[in-house]
Amino acid sequence: MNEQLRRAPAAGLMQRFAAIVGDRYAVTDQATLAPHLIEGRGLYHGHTSMMLRPGSVAEVQAILKLANETRTAVVPQGGNTGLVGGQIPLEGEIILSLTRLDKIRAVDPDSNAMTCESGVVLQKAQEAAASVDRLFPLSLGAEGSCTIGGNLSTNAGGTGALAYGVARDLMLGVEVVLADGRLMNLLSKLKKNNTGYDLRHLFVGAEGTLGIITAATLKMFPRPRAVETAFIGLSSPAAAVKLLNLAQARAGGTVTSFELIVRGVLDFAIKHGPGVRDPLGMRHPWYVLMEISSQNAEGLRDSVEQLLEAAAEEDLIEDATLAASLDQTKAFWHLRHMLPEVQKPEGGSIKHDVSVPVAAVPAFLEDAMTAVKEFIPGCRPVPFGHLGDGNMHFNVSQPVGADKDAYLARWAEMNAVVDKIVLKYDGSISAEHGIGMLKRASLPKVKDPVAIELMRGVKQMLDPNGILNPGKVL
Amino acid sequence: MNEQLRRAPAAGLMQRFAAIVGDRYAVTDQATLAPHLIEGRGLYHGHTSMMLRPGSVAEVQAILKLANETRTAVVPQGGNTGLVGGQIPLEGEIILSLTRLDKIRAVDPDSNAMTCESGVVLQKAQEAAASVDRLFPLSLGAEGSCTIGGNLSTNAGGTGALAYGVARDLMLGVEVVLADGRLMNLLSKLKKNNTGYDLRHLFVGAEGTLGIITAATLKMFPRPRAVETAFIGLSSPAAAVKLLNLAQARAGGTVTSFELIVRGVLDFAIKHGPGVRDPLGMRHPWYVLMEISSQNAEGLRDSVEQLLEAAAEEDLIEDATLAASLDQTKAFWHLRHMLPEVQKPEGGSIKHDVSVPVAAVPAFLEDAMTAVKEFIPGCRPVPFGHLGDGNMHFNVSQPVGADKDAYLARWAEMNAVVDKIVLKYDGSISAEHGIGMLKRASLPKVKDPVAIELMRGVKQMLDPNGILNPGKVL
Repeated sequence: MNEQLRRAPAAGLMQRFAAIVGDRYAVTDQATLAPHLIEGRGLYHGHTSMMLRPGSVAEVQAILKLANETRTAVVPQGGNTGLVGGQIPLEGEIILSLTRLDKIRAVDPDSNAMTCESGVVLQKAQEAAASVDRLFPLSLGAEGSCTIGGNLSTNAGGTGALAYGVARDLMLGVEVVLADGRLMNLLSKLKKNNTGYDLRHLFVGAEGTLGIITAATLKMFPRPRAVETAFIGLSSPAAAVKLLNLAQARAGGTVTSFELIVRGVLDFAIKHGPGVRDPLGMRHPWYVLMEISSQNAEGLRDSVEQLLEAAAEEDLIEDATLAASLDQTKAFWHLRHMLPEVQKPEGGSIKHDVSVPVAAVPAFLEDAMTAVKEFIPGCRPVPFGHLGDGNMHFNVSQPVGADKDAYLARWAEMNAVVDKIVLKYDGSISAEHGIGMLKRASLPKVKDPVAIELMRGVKQMLDPNGILNPGKVL
Repeated sequence: MNEQLRRAPAAGLMQRFAAIVGDRYAVTDQATLAPHLIEGRGLYHGHTSMMLRPGSVAEVQAILKLANETRTAVVPQGGNTGLVGGQIPLEGEIILSLTRLDKIRAVDPDSNAMTCESGVVLQKAQEAAASVDRLFPLSLGAEGSCTIGGNLSTNAGGTGALAYGVARDLMLGVEVVLADGRLMNLLSKLKKNNTGYDLRHLFVGAEGTLGIITAATLKMFPRPRAVETAFIGLSSPAAAVKLLNLAQARAGGTVTSFELIVRGVLDFAIKHGPGVRDPLGMRHPWYVLMEISSQNAEGLRDSVEQLLEAAAEEDLIEDATLAASLDQTKAFWHLRHMLPEVQKPEGGSIKHDVSVPVAAVPAFLEDAMTAVKEFIPGCRPVPFGHLGDGNMHFNVSQPVGADKDAYLARWAEMNAVVDKIVLKYDGSISAEHGIGMLKRASLPKVKDPVAIELMRGVKQMLDPNGILNPGKVL
């Protein structure tokens, strides 16, 4: 199948596509296209002769109908912040940009639900919720430019997932344009709806290969009335897991973030991050950035202080400081959000976005750090991430003074070393970033073979001509 | 398709099925079969010549492989507590009972995950979590006999859904035997796992029509350290929605249950329920049973009292009492759990398990109560349910002295009257009970037609011979 798939359409066909959105929104200028052809890490460079920017769901339908009839491949794109290459047209495919579908269609605080089009920037969705005294808890580094459609298509995680869930969990309903242009309306404000098979979840995390999400109904939550943020020094990840248990068992509120950070990457942040200071006086091997929220305006600080005292008595922590002001809270989170960036001045970095059961994180980290150091002596593993979700960004910086390109050339080999340990602990080689291009070849090694067969069946059913983001995921 | 589907197998084939599980577990005695052929409400009576009780996943695989090869229909059954007839063999199909798959395979408190086979009774799963100081929050009236496999296959709701989600939300992974006997292992303790399409959710809520769930990894939560339960009298559902907002915004803890009850059904409970007393001194048109939980052992009672005072100041509530003891808490919940039962002495009852956006509940109730009273003068609507989820059990008792059978004969007509109002408010005609047989004919009227087509495609892909619970859902 798909033999006749058209990657780069001829001029006449391009005109038919352009007519759907109007010339103004059919971008062919290469300078304008350029930023849409590379992704943040520079791993993938694509090319195309056209990007379509539909302004309505009907235009998306018309584009896909024509694409399906003419076997023309399209690559959907939101804010272009994905980290696995899923949004890049690698073989000249038309880019289908969803950013003009940026209406917030409805905000219903009593039902704790809002309906956003897929091009709504995440931060705008957060602001819309805040404007009615609600919280939309999805939060990640790219929130100023990533979009709701991309968040759902990649099933984004972020720092709020511990208490509120990943993007999939925040979705009540979706509106999807199928490969042949048909519209499927599964929008709903309902938390309970048992009318037939759940088709919504097929499209979340499918990276635009099964259909184009054009809108979604999202959950909102009460806004916390009090938030306490602690920066904690500990001796080991095992101590951090015990602290997490203690915090979840007795916090007078909800543990909304629990981030583990190794000392090495904190050193990078202090060295390279503008305005970053060490929050604690002494050095510790590991750190936890913990946030506890409460609907009760009073009493939270006392109960978090008591929690930290109890943890100290049990020798779980070496030192801790509670943010004394909003500025200090921001400084803690600034440090955390700088961690991806501050690795760059240290040379090449080989990344792994993995998850294992929370209880297995300490053993995984020990095994993986030992293994990569054996694999490339002198390399510097700097893991950090969402311990509460078992999700580690297991990044490995090159040895000091090594050749960057030679180091990065061993990306796949090192991935194989780490992935093997991930599987030993029943983990996932893609926790929150997805498969895209980067991990497509690895998927068959880690996924149940029957599941892979079913995935192919689903793809064949929903996109028989293979026009939607070809070559990604499967 | 499915022309050759075999409902009642011949003797030779029955022997081949019996050989898989052994004669002891191939039940053919009609007296033993009898309780498996009717469901709780007595709406459906089935018949069969055989019930198979496999003792291992491999036996489930062998049964389905043979069933698929011989085009023999099977109806999966757990605790037989479903309310829409999905578990009843209406045309002589073999019953596939999962109750012997009752192992709790693993309980991992550090990862907040446990893996149960599908025949584990819900209450046993709750107890396993409690034994490691964790909460498995799914809770419903039938918890002493319903099973995890049935809970997932029907996407059960219950009283804990407001804070913890429905069964779907509590599922981390599933193990499924497909129609042809292949095993798909999607068990996982991971909260974050973005490796390919999410196939798990297809099987949750599919009522056994797409595959047989044999095990599931379930989420556990910290056990609340304090719980306060209030019984509250109010003037209207609109006041209840405002109280819910207030409680969620400022409760020093988490609102874990928020049940709305009309006075009429409380009267039934007082009249017919053993040991049921009116928790409040005066009569009120509506009641809320509210439960607030906290991880903080101290301070919750004060903050709930302050909440109720604030609600009284805003005229949201007429009266309220906080349970003063565990016995009183149990009495409040006993009253709540008696509500289905106490309708029976009042004659025929026509049921609707519906949901609408929370904000729309007051208008829905007003419209629906007016409409059914117009439709059958003298009928007594006694709605109650999970207001926090927008989920109402909109039950309507017959007029006093009316003929029960004549009243029940108008079940479908009254459903149509109510369903029309549900749709007006973008609601669902099956919030938590499913489609089964009862609502199969209604499904095409309420579901997006493209979604119905896709559902048929999914069914065809996963069960091309149509052997799995034929005639249910679709």
